[in-house]
Amino acid sequence: MSNHNITKPTLLVDIERVRTNIKRMSEKAQRNNVEFRPHFKTHQSAEIGEIFREFGVNKITVTTVEMAEYFAQHGWSDITIAMPVNLREIDKINELTSIAPLGLIVDSEFSSKFLSENIFNKVNIWIEINAGYNRSGVINDSISEILRITEIIRNSQKLKLSGILSHFGNTYSAKSLEDVQNIFADSHIKMQKVRILLESKFGSEFKISVGDTPSCSILEDFGQVDEIRPGNFVFYDLMQLNIGACTEKDIAVTLACPVISKNSEKNEIVLYGGAIHLSKEYIIYNGRKCFGAITTLNAKSWCKIIQNAFVKSISQEHAVVNAPESLLKTVEIGDLLGIIPVHSCLTANLMRKYLTTDDRIIEMAKFR
Amino acid sequence: MSNHNITKPTLLVDIERVRTNIKRMSEKAQRNNVEFRPHFKTHQSAEIGEIFREFGVNKITVTTVEMAEYFAQHGWSDITIAMPVNLREIDKINELTSIAPLGLIVDSEFSSKFLSENIFNKVNIWIEINAGYNRSGVINDSISEILRITEIIRNSQKLKLSGILSHFGNTYSAKSLEDVQNIFADSHIKMQKVRILLESKFGSEFKISVGDTPSCSILEDFGQVDEIRPGNFVFYDLMQLNIGACTEKDIAVTLACPVISKNSEKNEIVLYGGAIHLSKEYIIYNGRKCFGAITTLNAKSWCKIIQNAFVKSISQEHAVVNAPESLLKTVEIGDLLGIIPVHSCLTANLMRKYLTTDDRIIEMAKFR
Repeated sequence: MSNHNITKPTLLVDIERVRTNIKRMSEKAQRNNVEFRPHFKTHQSAEIGEIFREFGVNKITVTTVEMAEYFAQHGWSDITIAMPVNLREIDKINELTSIAPLGLIVDSEFSSKFLSENIFNKVNIWIEINAGYNRSGVINDSISEILRITEIIRNSQKLKLSGILSHFGNTYSAKSLEDVQNIFADSHIKMQKVRILLESKFGSEFKISVGDTPSCSILEDFGQVDEIRPGNFVFYDLMQLNIGACTEKDIAVTLACPVISKNSEKNEIVLYGGAIHLSKEYIIYNGRKCFGAITTLNAKSWCKIIQNAFVKSISQEHAVVNAPESLLKTVEIGDLLGIIPVHSCLTANLMRKYLTTDDRIIEMAKFR
Repeated sequence: MSNHNITKPTLLVDIERVRTNIKRMSEKAQRNNVEFRPHFKTHQSAEIGEIFREFGVNKITVTTVEMAEYFAQHGWSDITIAMPVNLREIDKINELTSIAPLGLIVDSEFSSKFLSENIFNKVNIWIEINAGYNRSGVINDSISEILRITEIIRNSQKLKLSGILSHFGNTYSAKSLEDVQNIFADSHIKMQKVRILLESKFGSEFKISVGDTPSCSILEDFGQVDEIRPGNFVFYDLMQLNIGACTEKDIAVTLACPVISKNSEKNEIVLYGGAIHLSKEYIIYNGRKCFGAITTLNAKSWCKIIQNAFVKSISQEHAVVNAPESLLKTVEIGDLLGIIPVHSCLTANLMRKYLTTDDRIIEMAKFR
């Protein structure tokens, strides 16, 4: 890794770790006999997408219509857009469905009716269920609403009902492995109840699709689930390490940042690298906000996380690092340090490209 | 404003409000007889930069070398890069100084020596002082260090010492107008003490440059300050409104977002618009995290902030809005709502372009 070419905040990616993360999750899906439909919003890169193909992946998840367009242009033909369908993009959706089979999400009668009246080509539909995360989705016990939505979809020629879908996003704020297991178990039961009800009522099969990274990483048995859609696991990050969803050596990205200031009296180092590179996502670590862990770089990659070194505050372009004396002694202004991001999805989204540890640039989609 | 053309999260800008904000700050600088060197990191747009020229602005502040390059290419020739100089970019800095006069920031003997040995052309140097914000800068009472840095700069043929510079960024967490005034008064005295000491020691003039938006907006008298560098005031935002640095009608940007889900039982609306559009910056409002205020859009612009409507949680692409019944009754899936951003600098940085309320696209710099 030619560190001397790095002059500004640069997102390093270790492709071997990426490959290992994909392989592990892919094999786990196979062992569980569930469909593996990874979420590509984390990496947003056609080139990283190709690594998934090595493991037989041919179905993906994205969040937005523009992301679906991008990956469709790169040869992906079975794409679920896992956000309640944005009706204002119906024209683009219709364009896309004429090229690639799409999966769309609904959580209301209104959107279901709108789609049944405005979709030109066949699409797969998932009803989103709110199983406790409390973002979007029909609440799991709003049975009559779920039944009405199901009727609308089943009465449409173009809409093909695949099943029920949920994101157990509350696992991201889990404090322990047991927390994650409990959230999964609780949400899984809710999903299973909805499915049983629908199947008994309509006499046909309904799949269950779930897929947060903490659950998919920690659990060995996915129960009655038919499909998983994790995304973050491709890189992992400090938040996942903190939850226990990965080990340090699974984390596949680090932000290389120039040292621009240091203050030995205050035990601080200031890095060029801030909210416009990392986002303002934080975890609470030893009772304090932590916006990233700190590592040094070597000729091949980055090193282990340095104990008691962390980003304690962050502004637009600056990160203030709490630095132990040992680090202060060895680091000078103009050197590079690595920040392990708290949330790799948001960091990758901000950085828009990667530098591999063997010095290649990997581009991401250009959206705006 | 042709709202029907807006299909996804779109950053609206009201150029008349932008012009009024610039005019007001420019006139205040003139009344105070201080140099006005606005920070262009907020808007990052050559076109918005042109509005500043209408008010005689010919000096600007940026944060990074690439931002300096961009604005130099657009005709700006007096640019301060207001972050401790990134020594790893010395080659680009030397290139730039051959085209445009630059101002650089140092807060260490190390960087000062490095510059004195590696700069090819004359540059203006500011010594950054930490007057209480505790990010970068030499602590104001580290007198011997400040003197040593001054000596190094004065002994260099290429480095021209302009004076001392500080960012009173602690005003951003002020809870009241008095808080801002007190932080300014306290930090101002510290800066003035350093200047008096330097002037008595070296017998020449040293300027004071400061410039956070809360101080510059709230104070009528800038005391002994020679130059102000506010940036955020060009757009303002919810954070500035909360501090009291602006009124609601000064806020010049709003994120238009499609409604993708609503839940009347939970008093919630879900918008397509999340951390990748707004950032995860929040304020505490009535004891709860608030990631944005909510407004409706009309044919010309956006309307007043709706009481008791706010973004209560945010993920990568979703915003969950706490919605009063009156709003729930009038808004349907597929409509647009506006989110007044908590921090307009981070929002603009994420969005990378603007839509004016008279339907023109304004581009920002393309960096990555």
